[in-house]
Amino acid sequence: MTKNKKQIKFGALIHGVGGNVSAWRHPEVPADASVNFKFYTEQAQTAEAGKFDLVFIADGLYINEKSIPHFLNRFEPLTILSALAAVTSKIGLVGTLSSSYSEPFTVARQFGSLDHISGGRAGWNVVTSPLEGSAKNFGKPEHPTHDERYRIAEEYLEVTRGLWDSWEDDAFVRNKETGVFFDPSKLHRLNHKGTYFSVEGPLNIARSKQGHPVIFQAGSSESGKNLAAKGADAVFTGHETIEEAKQFYKEVKERTVAAGRSADDVVILPGIGPIIGRTQEEADRKYEEIASLVSIESALNYLGRFFEHHDFSQYPLDEPFPDLGDLGSNSFRSGTDKLKKAAKENGWTLRQVALQSATPRGPFVGTPEYVADLIQQWHEEEAADGFIIHSSIPSGLSDFVNLVVPILQERGLYRTEYESDTLRGNLGLPIPENRYAAAAKVQVGS
Amino acid sequence: MTKNKKQIKFGALIHGVGGNVSAWRHPEVPADASVNFKFYTEQAQTAEAGKFDLVFIADGLYINEKSIPHFLNRFEPLTILSALAAVTSKIGLVGTLSSSYSEPFTVARQFGSLDHISGGRAGWNVVTSPLEGSAKNFGKPEHPTHDERYRIAEEYLEVTRGLWDSWEDDAFVRNKETGVFFDPSKLHRLNHKGTYFSVEGPLNIARSKQGHPVIFQAGSSESGKNLAAKGADAVFTGHETIEEAKQFYKEVKERTVAAGRSADDVVILPGIGPIIGRTQEEADRKYEEIASLVSIESALNYLGRFFEHHDFSQYPLDEPFPDLGDLGSNSFRSGTDKLKKAAKENGWTLRQVALQSATPRGPFVGTPEYVADLIQQWHEEEAADGFIIHSSIPSGLSDFVNLVVPILQERGLYRTEYESDTLRGNLGLPIPENRYAAAAKVQVGS
Ligand SMILES: Cc1cc2nc3c(=O)[nH]c(=O)nc-3n(C[C@H](O)[C@H](O)[C@H](O)COP(=O)(O)O)c2cc1C
Ligand SMILES: Cc1cc2nc3c(=O)[nH]c(=O)nc-3n(C[C@H](O)[C@H](O)[C@H](O)COP(=O)(O)O)c2cc1C
Repeated sequence: MTKNKKQIKFGALIHGVGGNVSAWRHPEVPADASVNFKFYTEQAQTAEAGKFDLVFIADGLYINEKSIPHFLNRFEPLTILSALAAVTSKIGLVGTLSSSYSEPFTVARQFGSLDHISGGRAGWNVVTSPLEGSAKNFGKPEHPTHDERYRIAEEYLEVTRGLWDSWEDDAFVRNKETGVFFDPSKLHRLNHKGTYFSVEGPLNIARSKQGHPVIFQAGSSESGKNLAAKGADAVFTGHETIEEAKQFYKEVKERTVAAGRSADDVVILPGIGPIIGRTQEEADRKYEEIASLVSIESALNYLGRFFEHHDFSQYPLDEPFPDLGDLGSNSFRSGTDKLKKAAKENGWTLRQVALQSATPRGPFVGTPEYVADLIQQWHEEEAADGFIIHSSIPSGLSDFVNLVVPILQERGLYRTEYESDTLRGNLGLPIPENRYAAAAKVQVGS
Repeated sequence: MTKNKKQIKFGALIHGVGGNVSAWRHPEVPADASVNFKFYTEQAQTAEAGKFDLVFIADGLYINEKSIPHFLNRFEPLTILSALAAVTSKIGLVGTLSSSYSEPFTVARQFGSLDHISGGRAGWNVVTSPLEGSAKNFGKPEHPTHDERYRIAEEYLEVTRGLWDSWEDDAFVRNKETGVFFDPSKLHRLNHKGTYFSVEGPLNIARSKQGHPVIFQAGSSESGKNLAAKGADAVFTGHETIEEAKQFYKEVKERTVAAGRSADDVVILPGIGPIIGRTQEEADRKYEEIASLVSIESALNYLGRFFEHHDFSQYPLDEPFPDLGDLGSNSFRSGTDKLKKAAKENGWTLRQVALQSATPRGPFVGTPEYVADLIQQWHEEEAADGFIIHSSIPSGLSDFVNLVVPILQERGLYRTEYESDTLRGNLGLPIPENRYAAAAKVQVGS
């Protein structure tokens, strides 16, 4: 147990009945899990027992009849994370919220409030909303283009960061004797006037113990990687092979350094779906049991969502994956590009693509030792700083915590106790200095 | 203990250091209470021990250097209510959210999500935002006028109600055998296109056990009363005398009936600030102790906020309250109108008005029996269906729960156990029928 080894980070994606498109049919999954607070509590507490850095709640802003069950009826991230704050004490609480369909003042407040409620454990996964239909739920004439969404996101982050700095850390004097509650010289207005937003401030909530909520980024396109390099604290990504993951890792770290930050300032966390068995055969059987729940119809529906709700039932199932031209590039661009390329290179049929997308197997299926070895390899070879564990069924997470985590702890690769009670502290991220306090220091020094 | 008597309802306003403008200086108040989750938890649990119907979280969207301490740095309502959902089990969770600066799709989702997390205990206090400065935090060229804000609010409520009905109550089949998760004929698109909003839907969360979150309304102007009559389930109001309260009660109930609803469909809850002593003298002393914390400067600042941040320090303190013309009518109209009128009629000086506004004494100061008698009188004489208790200091709430509540229980006027585990159930409000299910019934019947 050498204390010096760089520690692996873990997050748990909690997603009710969303493990895969048909996971809700598994006997182990409560069929109402996506609106079942008890289920979310148990998952979060399991992850906290495993000393995970964080739980992660994904999100979306548009559904239709073909959406997968999990998306139809689920908790909204800020509310469920706030509730989970009350039933956990150390684990980070990260949620997706779109910068394309919300107001920075409100979002800065809500994440700021979650950060206070949880004592510095909040994180925000900034997404730009892939689904075109979202525009119709927000009275917008059209969904902004991929490029524009990222320009909006960049300005949005500038605004929320500015709002979070409204109050310097020592602004609240709270002297009961003198009656001085705060020092007005430590209260700052942002006065932001930009292309997309105009926000005066100040924000009506102070910074928390960790300064700002941790900023996650989940887009893997060029624009996504650049946004991450410039300003994200962590990246949630997805890769099927270690080579691909290493390539992505290297690229994002290099861009981060090029943007004037340290490579350690951004934590890269691929999502993986471990399935653990006492033997390889048992693990394989568990995978098959989950995969067999998926019908080809639901797999085609699921696939369609990534391609602007394209109707794949019009194509023959066992012929090569159809040529879709540009379709999908304005929604989940990085994902659809990758998928089209792989289908072409490997000569996959539509059926193969649909079923693989609906229940990706991934490499992390096997005995606890096998999975621990693979995790260690990905970590040592700089494919990942850590992993977001997503399981189709609840025992996926508890098996991981009970069987894989102890092996990694034994090897000195993973904490046996939380180092900190903030998310930044546990992820090893710096506390962002208040911009006004920093400016004042420079003035004094100059 | 006759069970037949109409039962009194109680809510607790939890507002950190906001009891009055200087309450944070009181030895009993944690000076950071407005961002102290432990404080909120204790208050909510005290109210639940007292079988209160609900806790209430107020809100605002604009601060400046003259704002009172509580407004500067406080929890955002939806996040703190979601956290309180996890540490309580029966009490309703009501929060203020402005219809002038938010998106109906998001607000419908967040309150819907809170409603599921809490098992049917959510309530939304729909306000139109009195403060002009709010516009600057949301990139709006100007704050809408009082009338327009209420027109927006009305359409907003139509949209959120429609979104909450997206799914009929039996839409989720969740048959693991057949693989049928939901019945598409029970999923409905709103397709709303109105003056202010255009929202397609459906919402990605189902109705909760109580159908819709309970709708509160807190404006007391003509437009406010009309909005309440047409569509609110409850009204939070404020009155200094029983006569005024009776007049308001009668008016709102009459308008509700005129709008085609039953008088019982709207619950009227004035806010009161009880101060309990073993003797009248002790109660008076407690009031003085709280009032003495307020400086004239902070009282003038507090007053200014109601009049569009008017600077009252320019007037002589001990001369009649100045003539302000129309000032204040586009923000807190009902309040400022009342105040101007009372100041004129009673010949109050600026000092008197400022100090009274900062620490209103109200009639509910005295022994437990005295306060219980007064509550009974207000209730019996139809000045109120119940009360929102706001205390400047934490013992205000616990004294009320420990000393006044048992007297009212003894008299058969107040529950000894919750009747229901939903907020609608406890308030005696009907569950709104799903509009599409209702329409289908009519079709079948016709
Ligand atoms: C691992 C991962 C998780 C994601 N989670 C979400 C999510 O919760 N909600 C969402 O709207 N988009 C999510 N996305 C989508 C991205 O945020 C992004 O919108 C999409 O991938 C298109 O952007 P890109 O082309 O930059 O990747 C996720 C993407 C990845 C790779
Ligand atoms: C008892 C009471 C509580 C209120 N709570 C809030 C609140 O939490 N947030 C807010 O912005 N306005 C609040 N208001 C203000 C009203 O919602 C409304 O904006 C204001 O009174 C002006 O509208 P009116 O002229 O119709 O009363 C409250 C008003 C009353 C009477």
